[in-house]
Amino acid sequence: MTAKPPGSPPLANVLNAHRLGLDTQHEAMAFIRADSPVCRSEGFSAHSRVQLINGSRSIIATLYQTSTDLVSDQQIGLSEAAWRLLGLTEGCQISISHPAPLESLKKVRSKVFGQRLGEAGTNAIITDIVAGRYSDIHLSSFVTACSALPLDLNETIALTRAMVETGSQTTWDRAPIADKHCVGGLPGNRTTPIVVAICAFLGLTIPKTSSRAITSPAGTADTMEVITDVDLDLANMRRVVDQQGGCFVWGGGVQFSPADDALIRIERALNLDSEGALVASVLSKKIAAGATHVVIDIPVGPTAKVRSQAAAASLQSLLEKVANEFGVKVQSIITDGTQPVGRGIGPSLEARDVLAVLRSEPGAPADLADRACLIAGALLELVGKADAGAGKAMAMDVLYSGAAYTKFEAICRAQGGFREPELAEHSRPILAPAPGRVTSIDNRRLAQAAKLAGGPDDKTAGIDLHVRLGDSVQAGQPLYTLYTEAPGELAYVIDYVAANPDIIELTKP
Amino acid sequence: MTAKPPGSPPLANVLNAHRLGLDTQHEAMAFIRADSPVCRSEGFSAHSRVQLINGSRSIIATLYQTSTDLVSDQQIGLSEAAWRLLGLTEGCQISISHPAPLESLKKVRSKVFGQRLGEAGTNAIITDIVAGRYSDIHLSSFVTACSALPLDLNETIALTRAMVETGSQTTWDRAPIADKHCVGGLPGNRTTPIVVAICAFLGLTIPKTSSRAITSPAGTADTMEVITDVDLDLANMRRVVDQQGGCFVWGGGVQFSPADDALIRIERALNLDSEGALVASVLSKKIAAGATHVVIDIPVGPTAKVRSQAAAASLQSLLEKVANEFGVKVQSIITDGTQPVGRGIGPSLEARDVLAVLRSEPGAPADLADRACLIAGALLELVGKADAGAGKAMAMDVLYSGAAYTKFEAICRAQGGFREPELAEHSRPILAPAPGRVTSIDNRRLAQAAKLAGGPDDKTAGIDLHVRLGDSVQAGQPLYTLYTEAPGELAYVIDYVAANPDIIELTKP
Repeated sequence: MTAKPPGSPPLANVLNAHRLGLDTQHEAMAFIRADSPVCRSEGFSAHSRVQLINGSRSIIATLYQTSTDLVSDQQIGLSEAAWRLLGLTEGCQISISHPAPLESLKKVRSKVFGQRLGEAGTNAIITDIVAGRYSDIHLSSFVTACSALPLDLNETIALTRAMVETGSQTTWDRAPIADKHCVGGLPGNRTTPIVVAICAFLGLTIPKTSSRAITSPAGTADTMEVITDVDLDLANMRRVVDQQGGCFVWGGGVQFSPADDALIRIERALNLDSEGALVASVLSKKIAAGATHVVIDIPVGPTAKVRSQAAAASLQSLLEKVANEFGVKVQSIITDGTQPVGRGIGPSLEARDVLAVLRSEPGAPADLADRACLIAGALLELVGKADAGAGKAMAMDVLYSGAAYTKFEAICRAQGGFREPELAEHSRPILAPAPGRVTSIDNRRLAQAAKLAGGPDDKTAGIDLHVRLGDSVQAGQPLYTLYTEAPGELAYVIDYVAANPDIIELTKP
Repeated sequence: MTAKPPGSPPLANVLNAHRLGLDTQHEAMAFIRADSPVCRSEGFSAHSRVQLINGSRSIIATLYQTSTDLVSDQQIGLSEAAWRLLGLTEGCQISISHPAPLESLKKVRSKVFGQRLGEAGTNAIITDIVAGRYSDIHLSSFVTACSALPLDLNETIALTRAMVETGSQTTWDRAPIADKHCVGGLPGNRTTPIVVAICAFLGLTIPKTSSRAITSPAGTADTMEVITDVDLDLANMRRVVDQQGGCFVWGGGVQFSPADDALIRIERALNLDSEGALVASVLSKKIAAGATHVVIDIPVGPTAKVRSQAAAASLQSLLEKVANEFGVKVQSIITDGTQPVGRGIGPSLEARDVLAVLRSEPGAPADLADRACLIAGALLELVGKADAGAGKAMAMDVLYSGAAYTKFEAICRAQGGFREPELAEHSRPILAPAPGRVTSIDNRRLAQAAKLAGGPDDKTAGIDLHVRLGDSVQAGQPLYTLYTEAPGELAYVIDYVAANPDIIELTKP
């Protein structure tokens, strides 16, 4: 037989790129006419996965066919994600071909059928994910399999390593490099900006990167974006840390563990994140950032992400074992996860709490200040800056002296500026129907309501919580206030909370 | 608080429907301008899931935003799937709103976390799937969870029942109602048309519906579509069966178990189908069609779908237990799955084999004739038409007398006509590199090659196999011939088979 040798590039056909101005988030989409010559000669059908090449750049996109004048028969229309990834200009010629079969999908299938993922298999999967070769169907299958058949220690180490190695990595000419993380699930637990400010003031190097929200109404990156720029590249991040000792930037901007962003999008849609995936997500970013000492906050409560002491202990153990494999010292702290921290839930509302604590304003949420000092103290002890048991007091001194706020503002200005948070235009207080004592707060449904209100995409939307466990309230007293940027969302979230009157449970006095 | 009562319809905004002529297969997509008033007032972001309502019809679609003149700010552009589901005409006003949270996703998550699916949960999931409320991410998670944590007997019964009840169902005023099925995985195993023709000639009622291919290059519906119309509605299907005793129609056209079509699309993309999902898929269609007696062919071989006798026995047992729950008599037969049946792999090539057998042409594939008579014989015995052990001989008499072909043609004409299969324009023989004896044939990679050639979407594409296990071949003798409708695909599949020279293994003489 005569055939091209295996490994040679597939046959290519050329079309003119046409920008459709179509916002699809991460999804690369391509549109061609069903009657175009390339469609006929290559035999593409609707929903085909196709390889698009522009010079040295290559992506895999989902192809759709149109019978109207959306594109001419010499054109290929592209979504913004595809346009950006291929670095195109209008009319630019790109080639379209069948992609090579995705061999790494066999590894996903093996995992689904109960086999363990090896290093090579995990690497192949994560490499394909970072290159954008997985469709949503493939990504969802991988994420689900890692939850249904939980990753063991070796699989988690392999996943962590693959996620580190498929992104950028940085090292520092000093030590220790401090970092912190919260496993999430607790609305409003926005200690990071306060911890970074305290530790950086005390001379620690703390190059903090944060995720956007996974399944919550706000991540630290979403919250800090209200106050300053968080989308810094690696060079700018290093400049800020060199100047100020610390930073709070979005992890996606510096391309640490870019696989995480692709996986997070799916985990968010499914409201799933498994222990192994969680550990790999947390540690891959820390390792890529060059961290040597990391404190991890694990809130535990019936409606937090981690619901029992046993689950927390299992997570602690896995975090420590995986970190150890990479030479990173981890201390994880189990904290109270029975109710939100602070008052705000949603980017701007949480940013307001952070500033109130840093400025020691009257009425600043004391629980947020206390928890931030607990974490900062643990980090100061872990790196040897404070004696055992003396870290929290040292952190409180820095916070209440105003030094932490000065440092916070300096870091913000180094990152690009300082802005005061604003609140959404539309609001509605939710009132206690009868007098009572607050006996439970459902973190999950409160977070769900804040997401329905628009968080994290709508920065100023969310919930301001007015009560805490144990408080006594009168009939008609506001329990919390809903904030939304659009009236449609306000009506929608009001429907939701009306259908869920027990988000905050009151017991008759 | 003042709020709309729970359960009242969400707030609606109205836009003019614009047909984009966009072929997305099953996917409902909507496009609006990022600056349109409805987008701002409802706070929709890219990739939002939205509810679209036209009169009494309602669907959930994925929303994309555009900054160009694809649509005006009073318009909503729609994919063909969305257009069809909503029953629209150009300019028709439709309302767009936030969909209610998908409560059934909690059941999917419970399954992922290891809990068993109950009847109510399964029903909720399947109802939402049939209504098009699940995105690809959700569908993929459900399919993967059912593979990773296999469905037990009760879950499989619940899934089967939910799939039956969410589609149309039919009953007959006579008994028995015969049916057959092959669990697939064996290229070219196209016994159905022959079995139906034999049994219908002998007076059995056999209202056969078939799937399109799941992970294979051709399903029976794909193959029969080459010869006749298979997309009949239920009334037409009943008319054909009333006239001729049997039919071969596409299950999707009669809307038996429509959930199956949504799941099959995902299973195909993942190349996954689990035992429980397989049993529910097979039996839900039979039960909805009113079958009382069903023979199931389970080919077993190292590269067939079922790879071991143990797996086949487990599948047999689950099939029989689930069928028993619905009062259906099932007999499953384990057959040889070590190599393809017949010669052709791909819709037209398999149709050609079917006709050769029915016409007793010289050189017709004897293995296909033999297997069809085995299945038909088992069915004749199961319904009591033939004595035990006498069924196969009775079937052979009907086949070789030409009566089966006459019946086959009559059924085709009743379904809408009779067409001779054609072969694809582009072909290439793959030659033996050296003399040898054929010692193994890899069904999976052969099927993969036939899919890369274009099957099942390209009807005339596929593979014609020229050798069988045990054959001796000379160097340069054709092992199989590739057929494709487009030159691009021919080059592509040649690349694949060149990289996989051991699809057919030759041992030196």
